[in-house]
Amino acid sequence: MSATAAHAHPAPAFDVARIRADFPLLARSVHGKPLVYLDNANTSQKPAMVIEAVDAHYRLHNANVSRAVHQLGEESTLAYEGARDKLARFINASSRNELVLTSGTTQAINLVAYSFALPQLKPGDAILTTLMEHHANIVPWQLVAQRSGASVKFAPIDERGELIVERYLDMLTPDVKLACVAHVSNVLGTVNPVREIARECTRRGIPLLVDGSQAVPHRPVDVQALGCDFYAFTGHKMLGPTGTGALWARRAHLDAMPPFFGGGDMIRQVRVDGTTFADPPHKFEAGTPNIAGFVGLGAAVDYYHSLDLAAIHAWEQELLAYATDRLREVPGLRLFGEVADKEPVISFLIQGTQSTDLATLLDLEGVAVRSGHHCAHPLMQHYGVPATLRASLAFYNTMDEVDVFVAALQKVRRLLM
Amino acid sequence: MSATAAHAHPAPAFDVARIRADFPLLARSVHGKPLVYLDNANTSQKPAMVIEAVDAHYRLHNANVSRAVHQLGEESTLAYEGARDKLARFINASSRNELVLTSGTTQAINLVAYSFALPQLKPGDAILTTLMEHHANIVPWQLVAQRSGASVKFAPIDERGELIVERYLDMLTPDVKLACVAHVSNVLGTVNPVREIARECTRRGIPLLVDGSQAVPHRPVDVQALGCDFYAFTGHKMLGPTGTGALWARRAHLDAMPPFFGGGDMIRQVRVDGTTFADPPHKFEAGTPNIAGFVGLGAAVDYYHSLDLAAIHAWEQELLAYATDRLREVPGLRLFGEVADKEPVISFLIQGTQSTDLATLLDLEGVAVRSGHHCAHPLMQHYGVPATLRASLAFYNTMDEVDVFVAALQKVRRLLM
Repeated sequence: MSATAAHAHPAPAFDVARIRADFPLLARSVHGKPLVYLDNANTSQKPAMVIEAVDAHYRLHNANVSRAVHQLGEESTLAYEGARDKLARFINASSRNELVLTSGTTQAINLVAYSFALPQLKPGDAILTTLMEHHANIVPWQLVAQRSGASVKFAPIDERGELIVERYLDMLTPDVKLACVAHVSNVLGTVNPVREIARECTRRGIPLLVDGSQAVPHRPVDVQALGCDFYAFTGHKMLGPTGTGALWARRAHLDAMPPFFGGGDMIRQVRVDGTTFADPPHKFEAGTPNIAGFVGLGAAVDYYHSLDLAAIHAWEQELLAYATDRLREVPGLRLFGEVADKEPVISFLIQGTQSTDLATLLDLEGVAVRSGHHCAHPLMQHYGVPATLRASLAFYNTMDEVDVFVAALQKVRRLLM
Repeated sequence: MSATAAHAHPAPAFDVARIRADFPLLARSVHGKPLVYLDNANTSQKPAMVIEAVDAHYRLHNANVSRAVHQLGEESTLAYEGARDKLARFINASSRNELVLTSGTTQAINLVAYSFALPQLKPGDAILTTLMEHHANIVPWQLVAQRSGASVKFAPIDERGELIVERYLDMLTPDVKLACVAHVSNVLGTVNPVREIARECTRRGIPLLVDGSQAVPHRPVDVQALGCDFYAFTGHKMLGPTGTGALWARRAHLDAMPPFFGGGDMIRQVRVDGTTFADPPHKFEAGTPNIAGFVGLGAAVDYYHSLDLAAIHAWEQELLAYATDRLREVPGLRLFGEVADKEPVISFLIQGTQSTDLATLLDLEGVAVRSGHHCAHPLMQHYGVPATLRASLAFYNTMDEVDVFVAALQKVRRLLM
């Protein structure tokens, strides 16, 4: 390919070829072209280790958890609770009991909305979020605000896609009962200064929820060092199966929160005249969980540990810098989100073209990017655009793929002009 | 084995040996003995077709749904929405849009509790359920009743484990805003007369929710013929992956119900000053769903169709009758649930033994049964016992396995006496 030849790359220290061999789907073709998967912020691909862990669970160990004394039941319970241990260590929770396993970030945040926020919200109260949030960190707050007469306040961002931190901190007024922020923006890649925000929240006695969906796949996360109160993240964006995720919360919050979903496994004793509940985290895990999914997510954590998280981060940063530079060559291209500290997500538009047309034509070249509002309408409104094109990278992407992407973009742009 | 030799069985019309070959886990040994898996009401085993569908999804098609125009996104969306079609046809829903995909029955029932029941409940109102329900069809009602000042009423059952239907119907008084009943009891196997109950509910204008978790795996379900308003069921008990399930509801209810979980994919337009929502069923499906799980559940439905549902039911009934007869040979054995119309679930105790001791020793013989309250405390209280032993059968079980189970039970009983 000429683009590749024109931009020869030195052999990287990070052995991406070896890593790509771990991901079966990356060998796929699309429309007769090798797949270039740049939709990682939407969902990641899965290493064989994860796929095989799910497969082996169903072939060898499958049973329900917490409910049976038989061998399969014990194996399944160990595997499921073992995944909780792995996830707790992965984000440096001080206890496995602070980790509620959920179907994803959305369930995690809604649990906080309905069980933590709603019972204490009253007219005049507010929840603070930001203009760059994913709908999962906006709509649950709107729904519980509406029911309680509270309001949702949005901290502004600047034109470069950076949170205006002083404004966010100024907005931490006494009416704010919960502050929320994305660790990393899913559209801009912007990394928000969570520690700084958490310090100020602590000083003012306002609990802080962090949406970590786009952070955990890219950088080591230490919830204790961050100093927040709640940290939500999702499994399918971090190499794990769909239908998995977690809410980390300080134990005192989990103890104080009333149960939310009722059902099996979250009770101590059910009587017709009233019911007592299990301790956290099981108090919030009603019903049979996604056992096989969490077995897979545990394997995903093992896979991360088999690599070098710092090396992953460094490689992704190289990819991001290179892709950003190469994209600047494209005439009429407007970047959204140009901050110093960002994860490998690049949103853009090309003058005179529609992002959906570009994405459709890129797909015919084998390049998978996402066109749309990325579940972030308020951010789109901030920029005055209906949608952007988003290329989101992972550590299994290569410099050559960036070249293929940019060459394809140049080609389809010319087709559309 | 002597038990097998003593009870030779004619070759069944139903080719169970061929079917067993479809289920990899059934070839397992436990403690050096061939596994006899009789914990099917807890979770079913999965045919290779389901395991392979999940595996192939991750290896070949994995992407997020509803959000991308690229090829993988379209393939994943087609597979996910295709599973909705299959499930809708499987229970004879009149429209695919009446089927909300959930993480299981528990989420389905809690959705009805929080989005349908809670907004209309006021002090003095009641929800009617029964004494034989799983906690998933009790605790959500207690939680929303507590918040609204409403109460939960429990229809009684008789000593044989049958719902006293005339009492249930008598309790359908004007204060009852929602009636609930299990299609099939998870402890007793009792099949409840849902059509008769639904007719009376319709006459009195009371919506009826049916917990179908233990019915869908065993008998053809036709939600239109049943005449109920809500039907909840779970994937992992019907050969599908964990973390999957569905709520079927009449379209008018889904239209009237306010959104519950907020997040991506359930909105039409999000603005800082308010949000509009998608149409059902997507209004209730916030966030990335368990895509691969539903691909597997779709394959499970295909697998059922590859067999003969009537033949499955007939074989399970033969197994149930035989197992019940054989268990009557065991001295001091007390059966719970002796009704004419039941699915293949047998609960029992043996005088002078603890059910957990029995289950532990049975496990050493390779036999997996469940000892405990089966998430049905009120039913245990009805019978005045803390727990039962439960053997629950599936169509892949054999008469020989029943013999092994009964022989093992006789052996461990003698050990404990």
